Amino acid sequence: MVTENPTLHTLLSHRSIRKYQDRDIPQDVLDKILEAGIRASNTGNMQVYSVVVTRSAEMKEKLSPLHFNQPMIKQAPVVLTIAADVQRFHHWCAIHKAEKSYDNFLWFVCGCIDSTLFAQNIAVAAESYGLGLCFLGTTLYNAEEIAQVLEMPEGVIPINTITLGYPAENPPLTDRLPLKAVVHDEKYRAETDWDIRDLYYQMDHSDFTKKLLEENALPNLAQIFTTKRYTKKDNMAISEKLLAFLKRGGFMQTF
Amino acid sequence: MVTENPTLHTLLSHRSIRKYQDRDIPQDVLDKILEAGIRASNTGNMQVYSVVVTRSAEMKEKLSPLHFNQPMIKQAPVVLTIAADVQRFHHWCAIHKAEKSYDNFLWFVCGCIDSTLFAQNIAVAAESYGLGLCFLGTTLYNAEEIAQVLEMPEGVIPINTITLGYPAENPPLTDRLPLKAVVHDEKYRAETDWDIRDLYYQMDHSDFTKKLLEENALPNLAQIFTTKRYTKKDNMAISEKLLAFLKRGGFMQTF
Repeated sequence: MVTENPTLHTLLSHRSIRKYQDRDIPQDVLDKILEAGIRASNTGNMQVYSVVVTRSAEMKEKLSPLHFNQPMIKQAPVVLTIAADVQRFHHWCAIHKAEKSYDNFLWFVCGCIDSTLFAQNIAVAAESYGLGLCFLGTTLYNAEEIAQVLEMPEGVIPINTITLGYPAENPPLTDRLPLKAVVHDEKYRAETDWDIRDLYYQMDHSDFTKKLLEENALPNLAQIFTTKRYTKKDNMAISEKLLAFLKRGGFMQTF
Repeated sequence: MVTENPTLHTLLSHRSIRKYQDRDIPQDVLDKILEAGIRASNTGNMQVYSVVVTRSAEMKEKLSPLHFNQPMIKQAPVVLTIAADVQRFHHWCAIHKAEKSYDNFLWFVCGCIDSTLFAQNIAVAAESYGLGLCFLGTTLYNAEEIAQVLEMPEGVIPINTITLGYPAENPPLTDRLPLKAVVHDEKYRAETDWDIRDLYYQMDHSDFTKKLLEENALPNLAQIFTTKRYTKKDNMAISEKLLAFLKRGGFMQTF
């Protein structure tokens, strides 16, 4: 992990941090981190994203069940809810008699991308200050309810949540697939079953996986994902819920 | 821009670079950059993304028109097409008799997010090596055609394209809205028209904007966006096209 390039060192050292010291984040540090966020690339320099900063116990109490009571929400000094946001841009358009043009599917996806570029710069900047963080995927499960709690108007869709604080744990790096699994040279490579077995070998056979299989009485890691963690039934139900929210926000309108 | 924190310095110095030196990127540098990419957070450590690396003139020739012949595609030594990818995960599931569960809307969005976290780490790592880059939003306009050229199978949706090379230009930082425009404290703030005018004041009245308005004979910047850059008609047409592609890939199936 030693490298002469400090930025690369920050990136290569990333671990999700789920336990935080009882220590606040100074406002000037948070401002610098957010400033790094807005320097990220974004579509057409339209900045179709926003962030709501949660520090108050009262708001954490409201957000917590929407994230299935994951303890990080209440334990972290700062929770950032980052949203795709065409509302501000539309407001500006309305003032200038410019047609409302960004309540459609393309701009939902642009908003997702821009929110996430913004979020990842925030994550990297935070780690450069010695902070730890965790992204919460549960944001998409209850996006509409989170928007309601944070009083987000139509046109604003929560995409990412980051819990942020000084680390009170020092976990090892998480396993990843070998780089060659995700990198394709010139054209997407069609893998054989044996290629896939080889790429997933370490993950399939780690001590951590063996322990999981024993605990769950399942024959392999893939089935842990499909029967325990992210089932088709849940995925379909959440998809429907998310699409219904996007429809109500006008993002699914067609000709 | 001087800061004692080198990672923050990298983030705050970001500019899109559209002109590149005629100089290749060594494979070991590219590998380190991609390795930084896969260290980014991702949903459930499922890594539902892939990247196709384009270096060949032949493939750049094919990609170029799909990005409306923006010169960066042919001029950059490396083009990265980063895709949401549930195909590899499904292949692994099939080998292990685990149910195919991720061809739905939730996982398209998770794939978008994970691709973009991966992409932004790549961008930051590249800049830490003195490289310059540009994200191409045109990826979404012709996602299906780009997937065909790169021989991506069903389940793989191009989301981001990054052109990458050693900079042959040194542009100034781009204007952004003031930080307070995108940051909300505890709850989303309802802005008045005057708040919005204030937040957009610098952008509305910059010399660059004045020049644009003169060239286009339009009364304000908002109308430049809605009548010239990203019109409702185009946005709706691209939305339909992208949704049709997602439907063919199974990502829009409902109960």
